[in-house]
Amino acid sequence: MSSTSLPIVSFIGTGVMGASMAGHLLDAGYPLIVFNRTKTRADGLLAAGARWAESAGEAAAQADVVITIVGYPADVESVYLDPDGIVAQAREGALLIDMTTSTPSLAVRIAQAAQDRGLEAIDAPVSGGDVGAREGTLTIMAGGSDAAFGRAVPLFECMGRAWTHVGGPGAGQHTKMANQIAIAGTMLGMVEAFSYASAAGLDAQTTLRAIGAGGAGSWSMANYVPRIINGDFAPGFFVKHFIKDLGIAIGEARQMGIVLPGLELAERLYRRLAEEDGGAELGTQALWMLYERGLLTR
Amino acid sequence: MSSTSLPIVSFIGTGVMGASMAGHLLDAGYPLIVFNRTKTRADGLLAAGARWAESAGEAAAQADVVITIVGYPADVESVYLDPDGIVAQAREGALLIDMTTSTPSLAVRIAQAAQDRGLEAIDAPVSGGDVGAREGTLTIMAGGSDAAFGRAVPLFECMGRAWTHVGGPGAGQHTKMANQIAIAGTMLGMVEAFSYASAAGLDAQTTLRAIGAGGAGSWSMANYVPRIINGDFAPGFFVKHFIKDLGIAIGEARQMGIVLPGLELAERLYRRLAEEDGGAELGTQALWMLYERGLLTR
Repeated sequence: MSSTSLPIVSFIGTGVMGASMAGHLLDAGYPLIVFNRTKTRADGLLAAGARWAESAGEAAAQADVVITIVGYPADVESVYLDPDGIVAQAREGALLIDMTTSTPSLAVRIAQAAQDRGLEAIDAPVSGGDVGAREGTLTIMAGGSDAAFGRAVPLFECMGRAWTHVGGPGAGQHTKMANQIAIAGTMLGMVEAFSYASAAGLDAQTTLRAIGAGGAGSWSMANYVPRIINGDFAPGFFVKHFIKDLGIAIGEARQMGIVLPGLELAERLYRRLAEEDGGAELGTQALWMLYERGLLTR
Repeated sequence: MSSTSLPIVSFIGTGVMGASMAGHLLDAGYPLIVFNRTKTRADGLLAAGARWAESAGEAAAQADVVITIVGYPADVESVYLDPDGIVAQAREGALLIDMTTSTPSLAVRIAQAAQDRGLEAIDAPVSGGDVGAREGTLTIMAGGSDAAFGRAVPLFECMGRAWTHVGGPGAGQHTKMANQIAIAGTMLGMVEAFSYASAAGLDAQTTLRAIGAGGAGSWSMANYVPRIINGDFAPGFFVKHFIKDLGIAIGEARQMGIVLPGLELAERLYRRLAEEDGGAELGTQALWMLYERGLLTR
């Protein structure tokens, strides 16, 4: 298929994740329009052939597909639902794909507003972090109609390694919350296991070899323990973003009337870590520091 | 090597785990003597050619290698350190291998007592559960001297798939504790993720497909979520044994002056589960029931 027959994509939010993801679309030949609050972060894409728009709404008005990955739910709400935002400005029939990790209820509101204007919307948060975005190996969890999902798949193919249609509007965000809740518990267990091992005088490398491939094994242990051993607490995935995600999950859980004490504990510990100087800007494996520095009390 | 040149092994504790493990030694041609508190649980081994001893001490007195896998630390202490126990009765030069999950400090005491009598002792707890024992795929974490570990390896080869010499006496138990602590957090995260998914109306099978292979993935998720979906709460690994292990870990952590809130939360929740009728006899994946039945309060 020649690039002229590909739909025009507007990509809003060209931070660490978005810049890599948009780059893959450009590489695949999609005509690309970009907007970002800080324009310099789009420089690489503009140099590679993307066109600049002066606002999210202006970007949306020129595209067949609008993809967003911005910071917080408030940012998502603003770029989609402001009077001059994406939903108001997009062309009839356009497909809107929000890949930010945001609230399920907001995803439902956006989908409803989009439908009212003859647009289709998908919530499609990702996991896999900066490395996954760079290497095009993200996992994508998409909520929306079958038709909208089908339209999005060719784009997902450029950005990810796996994509799952998990349900209707909001289901992508709910699935991402389940993902983050599982990670929260696993990180707790992993960090506490190696904190214990350290206190007991065990060699961390040997401990990882002894327990990493068995019933205690996890993606987190395999990927983060080597970084912890090397004193590497760089993100990866930012503590501040994990706190945002866990906060959303706690809010949703309370609304649904369920009690998740492991999630609440993990969120408290990560907030405690963020109180440390520079803690919010570290990677999630830095939870280790709370334990190593003896910052916890019973 | 013909079987007559293999060392004589006394195996003490022929429960679900021990019977399978001892069976592998018998299959490999080791002359086997067995003792168990409940003799009927050794019937299969006796029928297959093992010899019966009337006590742990009597079994030890006839063997080159003594292997134990009994219930609780008090049982370990009794079979090893009673006046007519293994340490008192074993032949000079014998190798003692305790594969029970027990306390590191007791492992150190046994190793010291063994050394005083010219014996060698290893603490070598396992992970992999009943299935690992049956299939000979256990993971073995061994603490003791290099020489003692070297002598034990041919026996480990019969019972396990992986064995690691993790340090001196007690290090095997400490490593097992690290293993259980990691599992505790992972189980919490896994169960809470799928409790959230259920409350949000997501399909569990689809959620597992969407998140199981990415950053939220773990051995626990891959192995236990399918059982939870099928309503299968049979052990696997007993809730009551996990509570024992977590209790040992908490005691050790406190002695070492470290605070592990995730471990303490998991232990509280598993104790809460054990208060339910029959809860202690279920598999660890039954933690799900606490959430599903709304038994938790904030």
